[in-house]
Amino acid sequence: MAVNWPGQDDLLQWLDKDLNNWGRWGTDDQKGTLNFLSQQKALNAIQSVEHGVQVSCARPVEFSASVDVPRPPQHFMVSAGDTYRPDESDEREVAMDYFGLIFHGHTVTHIDSLSHFFWNGQTYNGRPSTVVSTAEGATEFDVMPSTGGIVTKGVLVDAPLLRGVDYIERGDGVGVDDVLAAESEHGVKVESGDVLLLRTGQLGRRSITGPVDVWKDGSSGPSPELLPLIHEREVAVLGSDTGNDVGPNPYSKFTNPVHQVGIVGLGLWILDNAWLDDLADEYKRQGRWEFMISILPLKLPTVTGSPVNPMAIF
Amino acid sequence: MAVNWPGQDDLLQWLDKDLNNWGRWGTDDQKGTLNFLSQQKALNAIQSVEHGVQVSCARPVEFSASVDVPRPPQHFMVSAGDTYRPDESDEREVAMDYFGLIFHGHTVTHIDSLSHFFWNGQTYNGRPSTVVSTAEGATEFDVMPSTGGIVTKGVLVDAPLLRGVDYIERGDGVGVDDVLAAESEHGVKVESGDVLLLRTGQLGRRSITGPVDVWKDGSSGPSPELLPLIHEREVAVLGSDTGNDVGPNPYSKFTNPVHQVGIVGLGLWILDNAWLDDLADEYKRQGRWEFMISILPLKLPTVTGSPVNPMAIF
Amino acid sequence: MAVNWPGQDDLLQWLDKDLNNWGRWGTDDQKGTLNFLSQQKALNAIQSVEHGVQVSCARPVEFSASVDVPRPPQHFMVSAGDTYRPDESDEREVAMDYFGLIFHGHTVTHIDSLSHFFWNGQTYNGRPSTVVSTAEGATEFDVMPSTGGIVTKGVLVDAPLLRGVDYIERGDGVGVDDVLAAESEHGVKVESGDVLLLRTGQLGRRSITGPVDVWKDGSSGPSPELLPLIHEREVAVLGSDTGNDVGPNPYSKFTNPVHQVGIVGLGLWILDNAWLDDLADEYKRQGRWEFMISILPLKLPTVTGSPVNPMAIF
Amino acid sequence: MAVNWPGQDDLLQWLDKDLNNWGRWGTDDQKGTLNFLSQQKALNAIQSVEHGVQVSCARPVEFSASVDVPRPPQHFMVSAGDTYRPDESDEREVAMDYFGLIFHGHTVTHIDSLSHFFWNGQTYNGRPSTVVSTAEGATEFDVMPSTGGIVTKGVLVDAPLLRGVDYIERGDGVGVDDVLAAESEHGVKVESGDVLLLRTGQLGRRSITGPVDVWKDGSSGPSPELLPLIHEREVAVLGSDTGNDVGPNPYSKFTNPVHQVGIVGLGLWILDNAWLDDLADEYKRQGRWEFMISILPLKLPTVTGSPVNPMAIF
Repeated sequence: MAVNWPGQDDLLQWLDKDLNNWGRWGTDDQKGTLNFLSQQKALNAIQSVEHGVQVSCARPVEFSASVDVPRPPQHFMVSAGDTYRPDESDEREVAMDYFGLIFHGHTVTHIDSLSHFFWNGQTYNGRPSTVVSTAEGATEFDVMPSTGGIVTKGVLVDAPLLRGVDYIERGDGVGVDDVLAAESEHGVKVESGDVLLLRTGQLGRRSITGPVDVWKDGSSGPSPELLPLIHEREVAVLGSDTGNDVGPNPYSKFTNPVHQVGIVGLGLWILDNAWLDDLADEYKRQGRWEFMISILPLKLPTVTGSPVNPMAIF
Repeated sequence: MAVNWPGQDDLLQWLDKDLNNWGRWGTDDQKGTLNFLSQQKALNAIQSVEHGVQVSCARPVEFSASVDVPRPPQHFMVSAGDTYRPDESDEREVAMDYFGLIFHGHTVTHIDSLSHFFWNGQTYNGRPSTVVSTAEGATEFDVMPSTGGIVTKGVLVDAPLLRGVDYIERGDGVGVDDVLAAESEHGVKVESGDVLLLRTGQLGRRSITGPVDVWKDGSSGPSPELLPLIHEREVAVLGSDTGNDVGPNPYSKFTNPVHQVGIVGLGLWILDNAWLDDLADEYKRQGRWEFMISILPLKLPTVTGSPVNPMAIF
Repeated sequence: MAVNWPGQDDLLQWLDKDLNNWGRWGTDDQKGTLNFLSQQKALNAIQSVEHGVQVSCARPVEFSASVDVPRPPQHFMVSAGDTYRPDESDEREVAMDYFGLIFHGHTVTHIDSLSHFFWNGQTYNGRPSTVVSTAEGATEFDVMPSTGGIVTKGVLVDAPLLRGVDYIERGDGVGVDDVLAAESEHGVKVESGDVLLLRTGQLGRRSITGPVDVWKDGSSGPSPELLPLIHEREVAVLGSDTGNDVGPNPYSKFTNPVHQVGIVGLGLWILDNAWLDDLADEYKRQGRWEFMISILPLKLPTVTGSPVNPMAIF
Repeated sequence: MAVNWPGQDDLLQWLDKDLNNWGRWGTDDQKGTLNFLSQQKALNAIQSVEHGVQVSCARPVEFSASVDVPRPPQHFMVSAGDTYRPDESDEREVAMDYFGLIFHGHTVTHIDSLSHFFWNGQTYNGRPSTVVSTAEGATEFDVMPSTGGIVTKGVLVDAPLLRGVDYIERGDGVGVDDVLAAESEHGVKVESGDVLLLRTGQLGRRSITGPVDVWKDGSSGPSPELLPLIHEREVAVLGSDTGNDVGPNPYSKFTNPVHQVGIVGLGLWILDNAWLDDLADEYKRQGRWEFMISILPLKLPTVTGSPVNPMAIF
């Protein structure tokens, strides 16, 4: 199945005009599509829970380098349990650690804030990209507007299940037909304020094949043709078990069209590298296709996103 | 009000015997008091939600050094928006960052896993403390057992409100009387699997007074006399708006009795530096004293805890 | 004694024209004033050594935060000696560590490469400042051109000794008169290829007073009026026991005139925060005022300088 | 050529007794073999310089992960030149960076201090290994005693040249015969206070073959049979273009015999991963086999060594 690539001019028109949300929630808006969330929406999702079954959508952080993790997360112990010796002071019996990471990329489950991408020197809502500076970080559009909590309805589109394959190939994407198939076959509906999760099976496959050089071997993810649907349905957060852009792509101007049009134009919050295999399994067990989801980004002022542990509850 | 300090021998007996949970959930148990969580408990908490109002219990991470943050978190931009210049390549229009931190301490909202403290060379459940090594981190008792999600009922004990003061003084603690007063006056009940949150007002006060040298000027927190109640009521997670131990204390052997007896003896998960002022305000607005709480630690293998953004929902 | 501030227009003219070395050593030059070094110059310095007495001009790196070290260097042990226990494996008996730092600033002894400052979007030698990028570091003008070794004659101007005071006050600078006084009174001569070291006594004073907020309380250092002399005498490296700019200054355009005119205009290599008190003491003991100096920056490609341990030999 | 492995019992006897320098320079000694340095020794080396030709013995630090650099050095810009835009403030025209690294290992040119290895819970000079702690670093035997400067005579043993091969194979070592051959054929003499540099050609070869997994594919380096000679000749610093231990080895107790016997028993300072190919070339050009060498470790209190840029001068 080949990706149905929109024309580059279409993407430009979507970004600038058709799907553009600049000013929609005021000139000072920093929340973008999180404006589709609401107390009522959260309540509905909460009230849809039937069993209290929780499924984590995060994969463990790996602290080792690999072909898709050229700059690995760091972990150092500041004190540890092996420093204790019998008959020495009790004082030392504490463990503490330092960890640090570049969460953007292809392996850490994280959310992108609206400062992760720019277009022609502008951010979402038309601010100059200089508001995100090397010296001070994201003085606007950091992850903070999301830290009041993303609690809403989640919808999973399990593209391999729908297509009857093991996984969506690198270079292929999850498109409009997959979403519509999920709606017709699984009885779900992508609605305003939802977290839309697209499963390709690629992250689970990495556990089998080992790390993959996504810059060389390509990647799966949402097809950019989904952008109008995402806009129309008022999706709050788009996520998948990939870096959320199909590669390679045919464009001269767009390296990451879903991020570039989505973040800059729509103000779309994106969840990268979500672990969706357990969710897919639970889905099948439950026999129902709606769930509550909680995404609780860390309160990291001036940071362009956050590692997260999204939790689906049935 | 003075802290009613238990005798040191009592603490030792609690740790070793009276409140000791070693083996209670099997010799291989890594979850400790999270065993009090259950699907039914989660469902009950979820079904108690009436309005969908969300209140974050995290304070923003500060990236600057201060008297109580001697080793500040780090934040570096790997790419930023101010590097863009008109008429140059689009490729550069992305922002990425590195952040890293020692989350243990007195300012970052975080959860301690069961490897954070030891006693006489042993961890909770009687394993040698060498399982937490300088070179490899927490090979057991890391934060992973909590990453399936802590979704349960939360109870807030607002000690200053109950006592009619602005805040609990440094050197004073929240004790059994405060919890019982909350139960009788606010109609709450601390039950098996609950997250018990004790508010002292000290973290909010830091916003006014500026950073405080807790090692010199003391700290508030849960009094160790609470430990039997915590054990009896089967509290899953104990949290407060402090580092969760009163300082200074009168003991020769215990620097942090709540952590030392709680973590090592009970297998108690502890939430440090929670931001409870917004929760206290919402409490008053809601006129009800029970809420659902979600704590979703990051999936950090071998790490002794995680920064978190706990979310209360009414 | 007040600083004899040159006019801002003079500084601009120096930078652009009078003292400007762009193209002097070719359009591709990355060495700037290190071109004044030579094999013969090194040999002369080496042959001037009489006793083999070595004096380090570095101060110890401090790993703790203070008012002039807001982002302190980091040091973590990856393995350590306290992890050993009797009768356990030998394998663990190794210590390793991670250290990291922002060396620029006011406490670490370090050398600035020619990418540390820019002027109107240009580097030394007229390259666009974009050659030093957030994502890739200093793709030009990094510290590498100095790593063949700076071995040459050193000259110390001990300004407090010459003026008969304990130290040069913050807000005051070491000027032309001080250098000329050193030449006439101490029989030294600042010549082509020399490392010129200006002592203010301020770094030694910090050991007594504790950390000082240089951004608020000012700083001593070389007066910008020295720049023509530095140019004329063909100084290879300018150093002092300060951050090498007097603060505050009267300019609207120049925050750090010595750095800005020196680095960008002259291609001057600057040694910040050198420890000169031991050197001053040795000076007095030796009764002679010339020495060999070795500065051996680390081979750090794309980095804008290096911490160093400059060694004077008499 | 096979390594002539000493028996394990010999190594133990060397460490404990025959080559043991504990107490030789006092019970408080922290300098070990640097005690062989002297002002006169430095002066002799300085006076042996004929031409002023400088040759760096450091290789550039690599900031990317590879099979022999699993935890790569870090480099982040705190401010950079690409953040400047025409007609904006001059203030931003500065570049600063953070770099950090684990220098021990197989690629960074660095010196080991006497806290890098332990034996049975003891350091060199019989102190408990607990003086090097996870929480505080090397409270003894850090790199500081070397920061007064290592300026002395250097001797290069170019083993491949002497053997008429391109490089010494992994698994093979540079042994006594190589050193004696260098002495008889090249007219050098290894004497008290010298820096002895052994070239295998392996680091240069890495530039051709790419990174090698030394833990799997083995390593070259000094054979442990050299230890008595090193002791007898009173070598101050032993260095090579390897990690300084041959691997694999036949011992059950020694993973790194040269480090373990050398550092702990002799108090030997070791220079790892020196770049010796340029030195070998210069050697051939000069037709003489003695040189002055300067090793100037950074002043890093509590750190177990330092990256360095050793400079040979002919």
